[in-house]
Amino acid sequence: MYEINQTHDQNLKSWVEQANAPDTDFPIQNLPFCVFSRACSYEDLRIGIGIGDFILDVYPCYEACLFDDESFTIAVVANDYCLDHSVMRKNAKVQSAFRRRVSEILSEDTDEEMRKIVGRNLIPIAEAELWRPAHIGDYTDFYCSIFHATNVGAMFRPDNPLLPNYKWIPIGYHGRASSIVVSGTEIMRPKGQNRSDTEQSPVYIPCKNLDYEMEVGFFVGCGNDLGEPIPIEKAEEHIFGLCLVNDWSARDVQAWEYQPLGPFLAKSFATTISPFVVTMEALAPFRVPVFERPEGDPQPLGYLTSEENQKFGGIDLNLEVYIQTEKMRDENIEPHLLSRSNMKDLYWTIGQMLAHHASNGCNLQTGDLMATGTISGDSKDSRGCLLEMTWRGKEPIQLPNGETRRFLEDGDEVIMKGFCEREGFRRIGFGTCRGRILPSD
Amino acid sequence: MYEINQTHDQNLKSWVEQANAPDTDFPIQNLPFCVFSRACSYEDLRIGIGIGDFILDVYPCYEACLFDDESFTIAVVANDYCLDHSVMRKNAKVQSAFRRRVSEILSEDTDEEMRKIVGRNLIPIAEAELWRPAHIGDYTDFYCSIFHATNVGAMFRPDNPLLPNYKWIPIGYHGRASSIVVSGTEIMRPKGQNRSDTEQSPVYIPCKNLDYEMEVGFFVGCGNDLGEPIPIEKAEEHIFGLCLVNDWSARDVQAWEYQPLGPFLAKSFATTISPFVVTMEALAPFRVPVFERPEGDPQPLGYLTSEENQKFGGIDLNLEVYIQTEKMRDENIEPHLLSRSNMKDLYWTIGQMLAHHASNGCNLQTGDLMATGTISGDSKDSRGCLLEMTWRGKEPIQLPNGETRRFLEDGDEVIMKGFCEREGFRRIGFGTCRGRILPSD
Repeated sequence: MYEINQTHDQNLKSWVEQANAPDTDFPIQNLPFCVFSRACSYEDLRIGIGIGDFILDVYPCYEACLFDDESFTIAVVANDYCLDHSVMRKNAKVQSAFRRRVSEILSEDTDEEMRKIVGRNLIPIAEAELWRPAHIGDYTDFYCSIFHATNVGAMFRPDNPLLPNYKWIPIGYHGRASSIVVSGTEIMRPKGQNRSDTEQSPVYIPCKNLDYEMEVGFFVGCGNDLGEPIPIEKAEEHIFGLCLVNDWSARDVQAWEYQPLGPFLAKSFATTISPFVVTMEALAPFRVPVFERPEGDPQPLGYLTSEENQKFGGIDLNLEVYIQTEKMRDENIEPHLLSRSNMKDLYWTIGQMLAHHASNGCNLQTGDLMATGTISGDSKDSRGCLLEMTWRGKEPIQLPNGETRRFLEDGDEVIMKGFCEREGFRRIGFGTCRGRILPSD
Repeated sequence: MYEINQTHDQNLKSWVEQANAPDTDFPIQNLPFCVFSRACSYEDLRIGIGIGDFILDVYPCYEACLFDDESFTIAVVANDYCLDHSVMRKNAKVQSAFRRRVSEILSEDTDEEMRKIVGRNLIPIAEAELWRPAHIGDYTDFYCSIFHATNVGAMFRPDNPLLPNYKWIPIGYHGRASSIVVSGTEIMRPKGQNRSDTEQSPVYIPCKNLDYEMEVGFFVGCGNDLGEPIPIEKAEEHIFGLCLVNDWSARDVQAWEYQPLGPFLAKSFATTISPFVVTMEALAPFRVPVFERPEGDPQPLGYLTSEENQKFGGIDLNLEVYIQTEKMRDENIEPHLLSRSNMKDLYWTIGQMLAHHASNGCNLQTGDLMATGTISGDSKDSRGCLLEMTWRGKEPIQLPNGETRRFLEDGDEVIMKGFCEREGFRRIGFGTCRGRILPSD
């Protein structure tokens, strides 16, 4: 699972020229999955693979007999409209064989005839409509950045920012699956109950403190049966791949509603995910040891501990958040970088999150989405949401054109990016996860 | 929606004799929906209607041309394996026409020929396998009994049992949809982190304080689009029907994990629902005014207020919880009544819960399940869970054979019942919602 093979070779080039550009998100070493259509129509959703600026339409390649026996099983079911019906259910071996074959047919070693056949099934990303890659049965959001949890805790409980369970439990809660939308979907500012003045009655008004949260999501591949926990040693076998997640948050609604059962309407109005799913195999070269716990921190309990998780549980994934306001767009000012963080700074690994989730016997299902929670680092410029960056709005941020922001305003677009980089390997990108705020109705 | 019509007439009798028994749950005035099969097989799931001790298999009745134009649309799609694909999507008018027609073909006014045709499609409930009636996309659990919230609050915050938001917001949180199981499914005692001794490290062990929660669930019929709240005046048009819910809870796990984001693994190991869905139309005679708020309590905000909700928002539904331990079964002792409560004592109505849920634009989808939260009354014998009944285990309950219980033990079966009664109307029952505890692996 953490092994590096020929599909990761940095010298491997594709005959799809754009895939060889050094700054592309989708070199031949990546091959992320997506669900796309040529028109904005649910009628003709297809499974595709990102390569350079294109999407490879998988099914016609299968029909043209480009897949051998080993990779056959995945391609034959790729004539489907979401990944969870087909690709995600397959085991790592089949997925790996499929990846190897896709790598072959896109590599520069391919002959002219093959390029002709495959070339007919390359669609420019710019001309494709991208869709939610899976039917998401259940969505779970974790809270696994200790820097984020400490910052947020400090705002509300200055003397006691981190609750006693934090270092023992990958804290998580159930989110809303129905309102998960794909990158590019406009986000309407939600209405909600607001009680900023405790002397007054609450009011039902458009959210005032609208925020983003920079997270990473991971899709469940094979599920487990109800009543059968997943041991930490096998946790990653149940993870198909990763995407970027923007967990939009209505902070004023959240502050008033969340006691005692947690966030509800403050989050359920929308969650945006990036459309390309980067597979675990593509990420193999970027696996790093689990976060190093400071001295004095407890070690996790046995059901959350394994040698592999210790050595390779982390992922060195760079994350960036940009903002572009309406005024910036009008003035042709490029999106402004708000923060940079890295997934390897999470206190808990995705393997630990998944093993914990199933530790009570809860059945995870193919296509379920889990997200890490806001990923912040320990520096000020690595905070993954405005709540932290502006310290609850008290320290507004300055934008290059003189505008300031406490929280998001109508017309603001938030753009998230993710990419892995390592000496000796090609850059593996995640594409973008973007959403623009529309005014409340 | 609250209108009483000929299908509610108490003098209406069925030629299915068992449906005329005074204590049946399923008289001809009820006609609840279910999904069933004759064998324990996912291959042949059918939509059925409960009548007496039987289930009417709908599709063959349609094939036999028993449905007229008006009720046609619902019957023709009833050759399906769950209600949300078909029946639940239909509007109230179509559902009502279908109910009228089913009432006709089961009524004693029917001629012999009709009885013969229909009779061929009656399956004894005892011979049928009952299934989860819908694909549940998202599951939301509320916390709408003020008596329950006050009791639970008092245990943890004696001076301040009810949080300031309680009387303003129908408090709810997202639950786990995948682990919702149908009545009769055995429930394995979950493992989880337990830290009863704050001086010690937590341990991962089988749950010690396993509990039930007596709730009522309601299924979303027609959904709404993302970004489009549902006005309270239209809320009930989006509710298809009701079932019983046992929200199993691991109290020791919950106490340790739930801060700050709410219950997670303490609930997600299993939730049991009763298989028959009683439609809103069947419940029309049992609608009552909203809970009378004590003087001094605030009135709900405008988006949670309507004249109809005020007059008819409540439902007079009696609820009973029974327990039968392994020893009681061995000794042939009948299940023991633990508590009696009533849904009309909820502080918030199901219409308010649904309107609140969609008030931020969250899209509800056909088949989504919402539950009320534990329904307790203001007396000791009306507490809807053991946590309240035994006051966190401090006051064990006595069972008729001398056994005592703080929380559930292995082999215990919890049986929930629900029924509406009103002078001048037939009793409308919900069947049972039962589950037996298996020891942890």
